[in-house]
Amino acid sequence: MRNICLTLAYDGTSYHGFQRQPQPHGPTIQGTLERVWESLVGEKIQVHTAGRTDTGVHAKGQVVNFQSETRIPEEKIPKAFNSLLPRDIRILSALNERPEFHSRFSARWKRYDYLIDNRPVPDVFQRLYALHEPLPLRREAMAEAADLLEGKHDFRAFAAAGGTSKTFERTLYVCRVAEGENGLLSVTCAADGFLYHMVRILVGTLLEVGRGKIPVERVEGILAGRERKEAGETAPAHGLTLVHVHYGEELPREVFPDLRRGKGKKDR
Amino acid sequence: MRNICLTLAYDGTSYHGFQRQPQPHGPTIQGTLERVWESLVGEKIQVHTAGRTDTGVHAKGQVVNFQSETRIPEEKIPKAFNSLLPRDIRILSALNERPEFHSRFSARWKRYDYLIDNRPVPDVFQRLYALHEPLPLRREAMAEAADLLEGKHDFRAFAAAGGTSKTFERTLYVCRVAEGENGLLSVTCAADGFLYHMVRILVGTLLEVGRGKIPVERVEGILAGRERKEAGETAPAHGLTLVHVHYGEELPREVFPDLRRGKGKKDR
Repeated sequence: MRNICLTLAYDGTSYHGFQRQPQPHGPTIQGTLERVWESLVGEKIQVHTAGRTDTGVHAKGQVVNFQSETRIPEEKIPKAFNSLLPRDIRILSALNERPEFHSRFSARWKRYDYLIDNRPVPDVFQRLYALHEPLPLRREAMAEAADLLEGKHDFRAFAAAGGTSKTFERTLYVCRVAEGENGLLSVTCAADGFLYHMVRILVGTLLEVGRGKIPVERVEGILAGRERKEAGETAPAHGLTLVHVHYGEELPREVFPDLRRGKGKKDR
Repeated sequence: MRNICLTLAYDGTSYHGFQRQPQPHGPTIQGTLERVWESLVGEKIQVHTAGRTDTGVHAKGQVVNFQSETRIPEEKIPKAFNSLLPRDIRILSALNERPEFHSRFSARWKRYDYLIDNRPVPDVFQRLYALHEPLPLRREAMAEAADLLEGKHDFRAFAAAGGTSKTFERTLYVCRVAEGENGLLSVTCAADGFLYHMVRILVGTLLEVGRGKIPVERVEGILAGRERKEAGETAPAHGLTLVHVHYGEELPREVFPDLRRGKGKKDR
């Protein structure tokens, strides 16, 4: 039995999230991958994922794995998949992994980016990939607040009800607000794990700081209070993209070319 | 009667081109603008455009004008329009123009960009805005061919049947192949006017040069021969974007930050 690992990108706009649903509401990424593989080689598989992205969330570097008896060489697997997948999902690479590799449990950290279009009139070409926030945000304050969120903390205040985690301590290696491509504002979050809706609640809180509704000084109190209701609202799904999943030891510079030494590094 | 001029952007994916159709096949940009204005102020208008983009073609800087009796101040018109327009059309600005201004006849030149995703696996986020060409293109040859196309020429070889133009001489001020944003290849064309499907046939011809099917040396012969069948195929619509329409005298540097002195400049 082989353990095949795929890296893939998808536009989540048309999908009801990653995870196959018992009662189908619409296509999912998992369901589509499993159906296409069965069409290709006549084998039923179960796809595991590094991160179960929500409805409307995108991915540039999602990682999945599955057990298979196929003899297709790894380098031919992406092309085979892509020949039958819809055009909004693309397999970027495939790799034979060791038997004990699991896309979720073996991951060391993940990076998500959240895009905000903060211009009065939004870019039509970014409407599906960035939240439109027409009023000017206080970016300096947002960057300061992001800095306070970095590090090893109990993130209970930033976890939605319905998650399966029993522990709430996570290390947020990077939480950074920056001017991104195409005039967009980006919030980058990298952590050893994320609680349910954690990135979207972190972003929702930073947005409230940017609007002047939550003062920067209150952020440490929100963390310490561990009360979900003290943090901001959950930001909409469509601004969020899973960018990278990492399985090595280090935070490589190529993934964070302008990485500051955040608090997370000191706490490791 | 006021003559109102709008600059707008749209994602052409869901539209059957700019021009309202006598037999509706689906929504058009013109039909949508006219319907929304009637809903806003109860006035029937006829929208004129700088360029009747085809089905699937996008715009970042389309210009239109229409006659109206409205008293809405110009600075409030974009917001009023955008409140009712679908999210894939955005009005960027509005201006009261002199009575004789016409978005098409007053235009001095237009700029179109055509995007090509020349990676083995295409970027899912660009699939609606860039042509995917999986095999490596000879970019140097394409750039040389583009250089030969610049200037004042009879472009009959690059005009599709069905156009309304009676003259075929146009000045192609800029025809340039460059590495664009997001790892895409871009072909920029700016001219005092374009024949029917001209940019898409120019790009189709450059693609054939890039594939090694048409040698660079044959390009001048294709121009001189004035035979449509000698040029390349019409490139698909979805890679094309109308970027800018210019009404002044000069080719301003901000629109072409790295403008070479092309042959078009000498011929003016």
